[in-house]
Amino acid sequence: MIIVLKAGATDADVQRVVDRVKSLGLEVMVSRGVQRTIIGVIGEEDRLREIPLDAIAGVEQVMQVLKPYKRASREFHENDTVVDVKGTKFGGGHFGVIAGPCAVESEEMTVAVAEKVKAAGAGILRGGAFKPRTSPYSFQGLKEEGLKILRAAADRFGLGVCTEVMDTRDVTLVARYADIVQIGARNMQNYNLLSEVGLLEKPVLLKRGLSATVKELLMSAEYILRQGNDKVILCERGVRTFEDSTRNTLDLSAIPNVHLNSHLPIIVDPSHATGRRDFVETMSIAAMAAGADGLMLEVHPNPEMALSDGAQSITPVTFASLMARMNQLAPHLAKTIN
Amino acid sequence: MIIVLKAGATDADVQRVVDRVKSLGLEVMVSRGVQRTIIGVIGEEDRLREIPLDAIAGVEQVMQVLKPYKRASREFHENDTVVDVKGTKFGGGHFGVIAGPCAVESEEMTVAVAEKVKAAGAGILRGGAFKPRTSPYSFQGLKEEGLKILRAAADRFGLGVCTEVMDTRDVTLVARYADIVQIGARNMQNYNLLSEVGLLEKPVLLKRGLSATVKELLMSAEYILRQGNDKVILCERGVRTFEDSTRNTLDLSAIPNVHLNSHLPIIVDPSHATGRRDFVETMSIAAMAAGADGLMLEVHPNPEMALSDGAQSITPVTFASLMARMNQLAPHLAKTIN
Amino acid sequence: MIIVLKAGATDADVQRVVDRVKSLGLEVMVSRGVQRTIIGVIGEEDRLREIPLDAIAGVEQVMQVLKPYKRASREFHENDTVVDVKGTKFGGGHFGVIAGPCAVESEEMTVAVAEKVKAAGAGILRGGAFKPRTSPYSFQGLKEEGLKILRAAADRFGLGVCTEVMDTRDVTLVARYADIVQIGARNMQNYNLLSEVGLLEKPVLLKRGLSATVKELLMSAEYILRQGNDKVILCERGVRTFEDSTRNTLDLSAIPNVHLNSHLPIIVDPSHATGRRDFVETMSIAAMAAGADGLMLEVHPNPEMALSDGAQSITPVTFASLMARMNQLAPHLAKTIN
Amino acid sequence: MIIVLKAGATDADVQRVVDRVKSLGLEVMVSRGVQRTIIGVIGEEDRLREIPLDAIAGVEQVMQVLKPYKRASREFHENDTVVDVKGTKFGGGHFGVIAGPCAVESEEMTVAVAEKVKAAGAGILRGGAFKPRTSPYSFQGLKEEGLKILRAAADRFGLGVCTEVMDTRDVTLVARYADIVQIGARNMQNYNLLSEVGLLEKPVLLKRGLSATVKELLMSAEYILRQGNDKVILCERGVRTFEDSTRNTLDLSAIPNVHLNSHLPIIVDPSHATGRRDFVETMSIAAMAAGADGLMLEVHPNPEMALSDGAQSITPVTFASLMARMNQLAPHLAKTIN
Repeated sequence: MIIVLKAGATDADVQRVVDRVKSLGLEVMVSRGVQRTIIGVIGEEDRLREIPLDAIAGVEQVMQVLKPYKRASREFHENDTVVDVKGTKFGGGHFGVIAGPCAVESEEMTVAVAEKVKAAGAGILRGGAFKPRTSPYSFQGLKEEGLKILRAAADRFGLGVCTEVMDTRDVTLVARYADIVQIGARNMQNYNLLSEVGLLEKPVLLKRGLSATVKELLMSAEYILRQGNDKVILCERGVRTFEDSTRNTLDLSAIPNVHLNSHLPIIVDPSHATGRRDFVETMSIAAMAAGADGLMLEVHPNPEMALSDGAQSITPVTFASLMARMNQLAPHLAKTIN
Repeated sequence: MIIVLKAGATDADVQRVVDRVKSLGLEVMVSRGVQRTIIGVIGEEDRLREIPLDAIAGVEQVMQVLKPYKRASREFHENDTVVDVKGTKFGGGHFGVIAGPCAVESEEMTVAVAEKVKAAGAGILRGGAFKPRTSPYSFQGLKEEGLKILRAAADRFGLGVCTEVMDTRDVTLVARYADIVQIGARNMQNYNLLSEVGLLEKPVLLKRGLSATVKELLMSAEYILRQGNDKVILCERGVRTFEDSTRNTLDLSAIPNVHLNSHLPIIVDPSHATGRRDFVETMSIAAMAAGADGLMLEVHPNPEMALSDGAQSITPVTFASLMARMNQLAPHLAKTIN
Repeated sequence: MIIVLKAGATDADVQRVVDRVKSLGLEVMVSRGVQRTIIGVIGEEDRLREIPLDAIAGVEQVMQVLKPYKRASREFHENDTVVDVKGTKFGGGHFGVIAGPCAVESEEMTVAVAEKVKAAGAGILRGGAFKPRTSPYSFQGLKEEGLKILRAAADRFGLGVCTEVMDTRDVTLVARYADIVQIGARNMQNYNLLSEVGLLEKPVLLKRGLSATVKELLMSAEYILRQGNDKVILCERGVRTFEDSTRNTLDLSAIPNVHLNSHLPIIVDPSHATGRRDFVETMSIAAMAAGADGLMLEVHPNPEMALSDGAQSITPVTFASLMARMNQLAPHLAKTIN
Repeated sequence: MIIVLKAGATDADVQRVVDRVKSLGLEVMVSRGVQRTIIGVIGEEDRLREIPLDAIAGVEQVMQVLKPYKRASREFHENDTVVDVKGTKFGGGHFGVIAGPCAVESEEMTVAVAEKVKAAGAGILRGGAFKPRTSPYSFQGLKEEGLKILRAAADRFGLGVCTEVMDTRDVTLVARYADIVQIGARNMQNYNLLSEVGLLEKPVLLKRGLSATVKELLMSAEYILRQGNDKVILCERGVRTFEDSTRNTLDLSAIPNVHLNSHLPIIVDPSHATGRRDFVETMSIAAMAAGADGLMLEVHPNPEMALSDGAQSITPVTFASLMARMNQLAPHLAKTIN
């Protein structure tokens, strides 16, 4: 932690900050420059982070030196974490593919999609039973009925299940049916929900919030990890910008960013990131090339009839063609699919 | 709803969309321009919104004509909603002031702040008992103990209580102690939590999400209103931009925007919006001038020792001076404080 | 300047950076923490800023301690700069009002607007003769003919003239007719243009770029100031965000921000910031309350017929009513209009 | 163009808009819905775009149906434009590589880089002689001396030259030495400069502005194209967001976006987009996978000593290794390098 004092800080100002820091059992190093005095603090940065040093009179700014997350950091855990979901792996060169409809709409369509995505090579079936919808008047999901349909369809074709939980009260229920419990972008900072899924022994897919930094995504992962659950898969799904021709702006540089700073795998959801099925294939290939550890894709047998997100869903035929391209490219990008 | 077809759309493309829309019992009006064909749809836009028309082959874009919220809209409810919290009013020319520490840290400091903010003219005491913190290692609040302290301090000085709820499981508990139940920015799209507080008979303070549009804020209010709770106070608390000298960018134009489109009151939280106590007074005055229906301010007896957000808390002395200035200005801005 | 080394930096890494810094004639102070080594650099930060210290092996990050602007900073010039344009003053409690059409469309309308805004109390007439338009097919302005019309209309009613220059080749021409030479948002980082107007003896109105930070705005002002022209008026005109119901997001916290860090006056352009005439009055009042040193407003006798920006122009009647309200409020906000 | 009237629009309101539109020689089609009246306008949208229809009383919003650019659109020119710069091609499957130092610092280093990038397979040498720097106190480039050095170095190794022009007065000078004239991000909406380079017969590299949408980038290209210069290469270089661990946020979805809407080639500058040399390789590969038509890369023999942008420059050794990887991948991504 580095404390920069305002121009013209008096000796008393300096002493005041020094005393405050020392009272916490930490050491300081004062450096008087020509225009500013700087105080370096040595010791546990965590303890300092709780103290509003920037609220002390005479302090201009406080600079953090260390990363605020621990268990999520690569310094804490040097090697890539590989999350294995019934044989489908994410991380460490493994590229897992999660595919399925935005929402579980009916048994028939879920089974149809499951069969097709399995045939094309997906390892995990996705589908929402609890749907976070902007409008209260939109379809909210089939709830437990949807979970049952999803589980049955996945089991029939030997797929894993990935589905979202939105409420702390539903964590146990969802975990009963899911192999990967998903935390949606809107809940990335729903800390109670994060803590709750941190108690599960199941992998958690944590989506980046709509305007979250990569650092904040890792801080949210920290909430899960500290509860003892170290099977966290991060997911880049686009962030909000002024660009209005895509639903969000996919930030693929989040991939090398996460890989540099964390051991956790990160996958990409190009469906939500772009909101446009005509961009999904291209961005899927780009994501793999950027080093992603997998993909999450919306696949619907008839996007025109989808109860949600039809515009961004690809058909099983397109999905199969994309998988074929990715299988061809994977060896050149040092990736093994599923 | 207006559907724009791609350049070169064939008669079959047009017919396909027309048939799809008509099958929903709606009427269409086809207009063939020189370069594009446009299909206007007449009838219940809500029904159409659920259909992924933009997923139909040949469709270039779909434009919504109506606002997606109803109960929150001024068209639905022409006059300003005035939320009355034990005599402190928000809306319709009434300017309510909520003040207090970021977090309830102890009985002593809470009582001290309550006394001071009451004396200066605040109507509601704020204070977090459940704190959403970016880091799991930060102080998370005193929980029910904090609620008790807050309630007692408020009662002692005749103040109302405003405090945050973060978990659906805690709604009943928090509502027992609070006069206004607060939904934080990070939970603006926690739809289950919104639905839950929509069942209360207590006023709800709904903060704008970190990157939410005003329209989305109103959609989230809609979740509460449709449950039957029409005592919703909106809160502008800054949005995320690239500007890094303030914590967020306070969007005061959200005030006329909400007033134009909705009957709900909107207050401003300049503490979180700027993250800097040296900007709080100025932005409070500006908020009142922009037509805000109230303020929410962080006041701490000793910001340098605050357990959270010290840098953005003002002292009771500054708060009193700000209240004095606002009381002087209020009549000129057609506002009545508390 | 503070240099933070990567975790596990060796003695050789540290020595390498120290040697590099010392070779520039600067002093260092090395501090070895538990997890990181930090190197404080004492001396001319400017010299260091040119050296890519962050490109040196073993360096994790480089933190700047000082502000990168000098002449624009309040440390350099403690008192408010007051820019006086033929009696209309900006800064130091003076609130200057610039009003007029977006573009000079004809002599008739320009004269009509000039008369009305003068009567209502404006000090400066605005109007574009050179128009930066997103589309090359849009009206580009009357060029010198427009300048002549503007000058004549202003002179007739005793107003000053504020008009934009977009090209280094036109600086002399524009300066011949203008009392304030305006640099538009799109040219905020057109450094050659800034340097050129820095050679004028006329005041310069510098608009904040569409996604510029306040610090960058001050850096651009620095380009003008260092050429010897210290009559710079800054202008907040909204920044780009994801919010789509206003043209831009007006950042009123830029006002206390500039006032804290710089001695230069800052005015607000609510017309471009909101893009909506129904928000202009409210945001004008809010800007004055936030401490702005003036306003720039688009006024058009018949917005429905305007050749550009009609949707954000207010009528002379609305302008007069706004001026009346501001005149009433000014003494309560410690402002003197014009 | 579609005009949506406000709720409760009277017959007179409707007639007023209809009359206004008809007076422009256009046809209308009025559609009265349950809640809104909509007026479709048939004819030249360009003529309408100039009229502030949204300023007419009773109008709620105006929706554009057509793209505002013409010559840049794929509708205007169906096949990919391939820009050939002395044999290095951009577009239509050709992947051109531009590499070199951020700034031309000296003859020696320029020659050294030129030799290395040529050997590794680059076709064009980049280097700034006129540098747009945020600070007026930073190195501003060697000006014409820099152009001479760059030209000589490029000629010696059979490379083309790409360099930036910042001032309309320098266009002729820069064009004398350059094979590609570059318009930097800060000048993307410097319309006079665009018009000026539109008169050249040389290819123009147009960088996306810091907060420009893809549509605006294409509008700026339109300024060049309409002057008769159709050799425009677009460049994605990251946009501004709240994410602060990279200099900008690289928007790779701009590539399929441009390819869908325009015939112009688009390349990627991962150096400026990320600001971090450790992310440059990964994002270069991802850009190629996203369909980019080329790359622009900062290569410096000794980034630690660079006079600008050292932190984002890669070494010649890294560049050679990246080129080798891209050469291996290109056939699998249907690209031919240079």
